[in-house]
Amino acid sequence: MKTKMDINCDLGEGYGAFMKGNDEAIMPHITSANVACGFHAGDPVTIAKTLRLAKKFKVAIGAHPSNPDLMGFGRREMGLTTEEIRNYLIYQISAVHGFAKTLGIELQHVKLHGALYNKAARDDETAQAAVQAIKAYSPNLIVFAPPKSAMAEAARKAKMQVAYEAFADRAYNPDGTLVSRRKPNALITDIQAIAKRVIQMAREGTVETINGETIQLGEVHTICIHGDTPDAGKVAESLKKALLKAGIQVIPVSSFL
Amino acid sequence: MKTKMDINCDLGEGYGAFMKGNDEAIMPHITSANVACGFHAGDPVTIAKTLRLAKKFKVAIGAHPSNPDLMGFGRREMGLTTEEIRNYLIYQISAVHGFAKTLGIELQHVKLHGALYNKAARDDETAQAAVQAIKAYSPNLIVFAPPKSAMAEAARKAKMQVAYEAFADRAYNPDGTLVSRRKPNALITDIQAIAKRVIQMAREGTVETINGETIQLGEVHTICIHGDTPDAGKVAESLKKALLKAGIQVIPVSSFL
Amino acid sequence: MKTKMDINCDLGEGYGAFMKGNDEAIMPHITSANVACGFHAGDPVTIAKTLRLAKKFKVAIGAHPSNPDLMGFGRREMGLTTEEIRNYLIYQISAVHGFAKTLGIELQHVKLHGALYNKAARDDETAQAAVQAIKAYSPNLIVFAPPKSAMAEAARKAKMQVAYEAFADRAYNPDGTLVSRRKPNALITDIQAIAKRVIQMAREGTVETINGETIQLGEVHTICIHGDTPDAGKVAESLKKALLKAGIQVIPVSSFL
Amino acid sequence: MKTKMDINCDLGEGYGAFMKGNDEAIMPHITSANVACGFHAGDPVTIAKTLRLAKKFKVAIGAHPSNPDLMGFGRREMGLTTEEIRNYLIYQISAVHGFAKTLGIELQHVKLHGALYNKAARDDETAQAAVQAIKAYSPNLIVFAPPKSAMAEAARKAKMQVAYEAFADRAYNPDGTLVSRRKPNALITDIQAIAKRVIQMAREGTVETINGETIQLGEVHTICIHGDTPDAGKVAESLKKALLKAGIQVIPVSSFL
Repeated sequence: MKTKMDINCDLGEGYGAFMKGNDEAIMPHITSANVACGFHAGDPVTIAKTLRLAKKFKVAIGAHPSNPDLMGFGRREMGLTTEEIRNYLIYQISAVHGFAKTLGIELQHVKLHGALYNKAARDDETAQAAVQAIKAYSPNLIVFAPPKSAMAEAARKAKMQVAYEAFADRAYNPDGTLVSRRKPNALITDIQAIAKRVIQMAREGTVETINGETIQLGEVHTICIHGDTPDAGKVAESLKKALLKAGIQVIPVSSFL
Repeated sequence: MKTKMDINCDLGEGYGAFMKGNDEAIMPHITSANVACGFHAGDPVTIAKTLRLAKKFKVAIGAHPSNPDLMGFGRREMGLTTEEIRNYLIYQISAVHGFAKTLGIELQHVKLHGALYNKAARDDETAQAAVQAIKAYSPNLIVFAPPKSAMAEAARKAKMQVAYEAFADRAYNPDGTLVSRRKPNALITDIQAIAKRVIQMAREGTVETINGETIQLGEVHTICIHGDTPDAGKVAESLKKALLKAGIQVIPVSSFL
Repeated sequence: MKTKMDINCDLGEGYGAFMKGNDEAIMPHITSANVACGFHAGDPVTIAKTLRLAKKFKVAIGAHPSNPDLMGFGRREMGLTTEEIRNYLIYQISAVHGFAKTLGIELQHVKLHGALYNKAARDDETAQAAVQAIKAYSPNLIVFAPPKSAMAEAARKAKMQVAYEAFADRAYNPDGTLVSRRKPNALITDIQAIAKRVIQMAREGTVETINGETIQLGEVHTICIHGDTPDAGKVAESLKKALLKAGIQVIPVSSFL
Repeated sequence: MKTKMDINCDLGEGYGAFMKGNDEAIMPHITSANVACGFHAGDPVTIAKTLRLAKKFKVAIGAHPSNPDLMGFGRREMGLTTEEIRNYLIYQISAVHGFAKTLGIELQHVKLHGALYNKAARDDETAQAAVQAIKAYSPNLIVFAPPKSAMAEAARKAKMQVAYEAFADRAYNPDGTLVSRRKPNALITDIQAIAKRVIQMAREGTVETINGETIQLGEVHTICIHGDTPDAGKVAESLKKALLKAGIQVIPVSSFL
């Protein structure tokens, strides 16, 4: 039974004058921030602001690199070569790490964004290229990945630390994948239900699927919450409270992995 | 009298399928490469290739950050705030440094590109913001700047090392500024003449202006050659030979500053 | 005394997944929409949506071209050549017009955006280049410009129709320019006050400056309201009602210029 | 037996200071120019220059729209929705057409670029979305497509004119598709061989595959030559001469389709 859990959220997803998300409302209640690196969002001014906010609330930070697709917010698959994937990741991780350096904080992890996250979860070649880039940059970075994924597998093979991630507010299919957002009931919006699910994930390593079955997720180290819903701050706050009440410490994954 | 000189050149100025310059022909003959960081040129794959080439020829590398203006190749002035300048520089320097890290090589210097270089040469606020960013990232980086410039002044005040730069193939005005490229005779193309000028810069710290006067440049540590002319490789090669023949060592500026 | 007035607003200022403004709340209450063309905002999907919404509410549309500066939302001055200005405008105007064509609606006007609007208001060369491009594309387009501006002057000289624009919610300096947004009281937020000012602009062609003086604006054909404040829809609605109550028809400028 | 043939080439594929291709050498010898529209290449200044050059040599022009992927030169597949495809095409076609309008020339055709061309050749949904956009913009545009392709099929169904395209300098597989550029002998560089192949395509509608078989291509209206090889101008010139000598008129496809 797990007694420690990390809560992560994608933050810094604005771009210049384009704002997105509720970073100020969410940051106080999470333990790991995935910071957009400029390819799907996150111009340099936004990165700097996001890291200052993370530092203020002692939230661990990670790079959140993407396909080069600002117009599609990194949500569209692209036929990148492995050479492109490797170099795009090094570029983005380095950029975010540079800001961390100027603030005297560490870079804890890397979590791929959007279409790249999804492709690396199922495609070995993509996963291996991504892990190779992360390790080349720094073998000490923690790789965030779904428990049973090509990305997790590639990271383990490369002797990298992996934090297994589950989703607080997304419905699961019986095979452990996420229900597509386009389907009904894909998103769980009830704050109580979210907390209950996460506590079960932490304690049992299981989740109830959209069909009502209970399936094994395996060990879960970090829970992803979404930052772009209007009440994302409240969800974060209540989730953290519920976990604490259930006797689960909410701390950055680097402190217990 | 100077007996050591650095030769620098802007390299890695392609972008994806867009090629530019003659990096392979030039790299063997220079000692410092200014590497485009993605804002005016230099996508991640190009950065990686450029650094591998620099490593092969033991050329020291620097970041060559720009205004965010790919369409204008960073040659157009932009009304950036000092906050924007600072963060755009940290982003770009970090990105190039990250690739250097993966190759086990150091980042030697920062040289601003194009319109940003020109603005920082004459505008105190821009220069101070730029120096602040470079220092925040790493106080050990060498700042490339014209001898008498706001940028050099700001770097000295910030206790940063400054490498004074002169231009091998550009005509000078009597006030020590460069003759605009739009004017006749702004570019010196005769290889012999270029070598002669550079030797005089090294030995005397002077240059003959477009009017025929001789003016003081002050101490010069690094000579900039251009990489985008068809015979840039030959210019580099013959310049290096001429300097060596004149008893001037051609080595990276970090080894003698 | 004017009995007809156009209300214009910048719309379609999202970009892909980045949303901005309250287009759905504002569109029913205005008569001319300035549509972002892709250079500061307005990807193709957003342009199409914006035009469909304009068509639904019978709002006349205009192109709202910008400097190529997505990261700075077109608010930063750029040192563009007149050749660049001309071609950037033709590109953007054409693109928006193409969507209009597919929907069977007309392109009524062109209003420059942000830093380009400001520069063309005071700089003859910029204004002439902009007007030249608009006229080259179509001599029937209406040019939106401040009453006393280089842009208005250039348009008149080129025999183009000009709609003189005033700002509903911005304070004016005694010289007729707008008070910088960075100064206190630059924005007028009281809905009643806004309506009162606009009625005075329409009836008298005057405005009370930030110092309390009354100055001549000259004839005003179109009133700009801002779309990016939370209650922009309400402002638009109440302004239209107030104008109607005051006996002023609210219709697209092309119907009375 | 065909006695008329169009020669097309992708031109205007520079971007700002990034040059690409040999437009000036090629333009005099072709009859249709496919003009990059800004998404993979072709900033507005380049579009304007390309159209002026086409006008000078009485070359018919077409829009050459792409995925939004400047970094990958439009050569990478992207998971675009049909709504995105439609609107990206309308945007790009409109932009190029706008420049044509200012020069008093017509837009003859649309040819998709790179990865989008390839996807539309084999995927019905993509092809239908593309054709829908082209027709919505103008039902008079000619669609360039491979003879046996989803794109040609979709255009025919939509009652659009289709120009069947073959490639002068690419090897063919036995199934009529092109040999991948990564394979040996994919490119035919011998100028005589190119001319001979094209004459056979024109006269017989057949081509010899990489295996030595002769296959039916069907009717061919336009021959694509590549503009990015160093001797592209010479290839164009000698191809045109060879066709003329063989009694085949070389004229824009709109004049005989």
